[in-house]
Amino acid sequence: MHEKYPLVNIRRDSRFLALRLLQTPQGRSRTRLYVIEGIRHLSRAVEHNVPIESVFVDPSVLSNPFAQKLVRRLGKSGISGIRLSHQLYRDLTLAAEPQGIGAVLRQQWTLLPSLKVEPNSLWLAVESIESPGNLGTIIRTADAAGASGIFLLSPECDPHEPATVRATMGSLFSQKLIRCSPQEFRAWAKSYGVAVVASSPAGLMDYKGFRYRFPAVLAIGSEKRGLSDQVLETADIVVRIPMRGDCDSINAAVATGVLLFEMASQQ
Amino acid sequence: MHEKYPLVNIRRDSRFLALRLLQTPQGRSRTRLYVIEGIRHLSRAVEHNVPIESVFVDPSVLSNPFAQKLVRRLGKSGISGIRLSHQLYRDLTLAAEPQGIGAVLRQQWTLLPSLKVEPNSLWLAVESIESPGNLGTIIRTADAAGASGIFLLSPECDPHEPATVRATMGSLFSQKLIRCSPQEFRAWAKSYGVAVVASSPAGLMDYKGFRYRFPAVLAIGSEKRGLSDQVLETADIVVRIPMRGDCDSINAAVATGVLLFEMASQQ
Repeated sequence: MHEKYPLVNIRRDSRFLALRLLQTPQGRSRTRLYVIEGIRHLSRAVEHNVPIESVFVDPSVLSNPFAQKLVRRLGKSGISGIRLSHQLYRDLTLAAEPQGIGAVLRQQWTLLPSLKVEPNSLWLAVESIESPGNLGTIIRTADAAGASGIFLLSPECDPHEPATVRATMGSLFSQKLIRCSPQEFRAWAKSYGVAVVASSPAGLMDYKGFRYRFPAVLAIGSEKRGLSDQVLETADIVVRIPMRGDCDSINAAVATGVLLFEMASQQ
Repeated sequence: MHEKYPLVNIRRDSRFLALRLLQTPQGRSRTRLYVIEGIRHLSRAVEHNVPIESVFVDPSVLSNPFAQKLVRRLGKSGISGIRLSHQLYRDLTLAAEPQGIGAVLRQQWTLLPSLKVEPNSLWLAVESIESPGNLGTIIRTADAAGASGIFLLSPECDPHEPATVRATMGSLFSQKLIRCSPQEFRAWAKSYGVAVVASSPAGLMDYKGFRYRFPAVLAIGSEKRGLSDQVLETADIVVRIPMRGDCDSINAAVATGVLLFEMASQQ
């Protein structure tokens, strides 16, 4: 099927530049599009009926029969695509061993007023994770722990950054994503009676010793600075993961996993 | 103090090449040395009395007063060093914002026969983690959860790889590191009565529902393939982290955190 896609093999081709643009924060925020890559991501996007704008392939490495079938299926449903030269695909990909298949997707944000809050639901709020890979791992972890959605409380926290998307391993499509300010977050939690559980090394309560009530939202801050005072003041409870050894902190994604799975087990 | 260190500013200088060599697996295994970098790592190494072979600095970015004091202190204790030109330091570092201080350390391995096993102790065994960053995060997590040491069951699993060292955030120095084969590991666990807890998505027991007995060792496999049959057969119990959503797995470091902190809470 992809034989019908036009070949793009020069760097200044507008179609290649359009893909490049989506690797920048400005390009993504202007177009409201983003890029995914690899068989797993693409097949998950299809499973979740995520609107696909276009596909791009590198025929020289697209040998996987499942991937070829996927491309055929997308072609049949009228989705446009391009073939990239091996070198141009290489320039674009983050994968060490690229599978030769990717797509441009439309960002899907859930607006705060349209959010449904189930009585027993668990949510995650992320204030400002600096490492894109960490943010992706956090999104994947939230999905695995059964979270209903993820609040992103700062504009720098971009779930559609290529390294973030890659680290989600396809979990981006099953999570509701909500972008809002700490003030809007606070108002939302209050109006729906959602317990705000903040995580901080300075928390007084051991995360294990607390009986969580639901609906609940876990708030996670940046790797270096933790949560802002503004979000900490919103919290109903500030919990802490006790550190042993002479370790003073753990990785933000690991901390999110430890806390979310404890909360999920009490749901 | 570092003004006295000789300046190295050409790439083929043997002292620079010696540092470069330690970024390769062959170089590290031949010399039994490795490289650490940054203020946090160096000060932790000093705290833990880790033998320091030599230091290297980039005076053009070494502005932090604490780091300067550290260099003076190491110089006074007779540790040799070199000054690298800004460009050579840049070539060496993994840091986005290098602090201009690093050191060559001697690898410290604990031999299996000399290992003391406390009755209530918790250990970690890692079979074959592919991502160096993941392995470093796992070592940091083990330290935070109060593990006594880490078994590395495959030769590819290298705790002294630069990206691994970086991700440990200095936790490498407080953990006993033991390199052994799965057979030796099995014999060790049997002879000391250490409960081997294996983690696998195919495990029959929910990790939360099990009362762990100690001493215990948690065994973690590779991101893609999990544990080998050889290690799974050694296990007294195979536990599973229940996945919700349509997620089929979580990051190996996150899984290690979820399991180790649950086990630690039962210690």
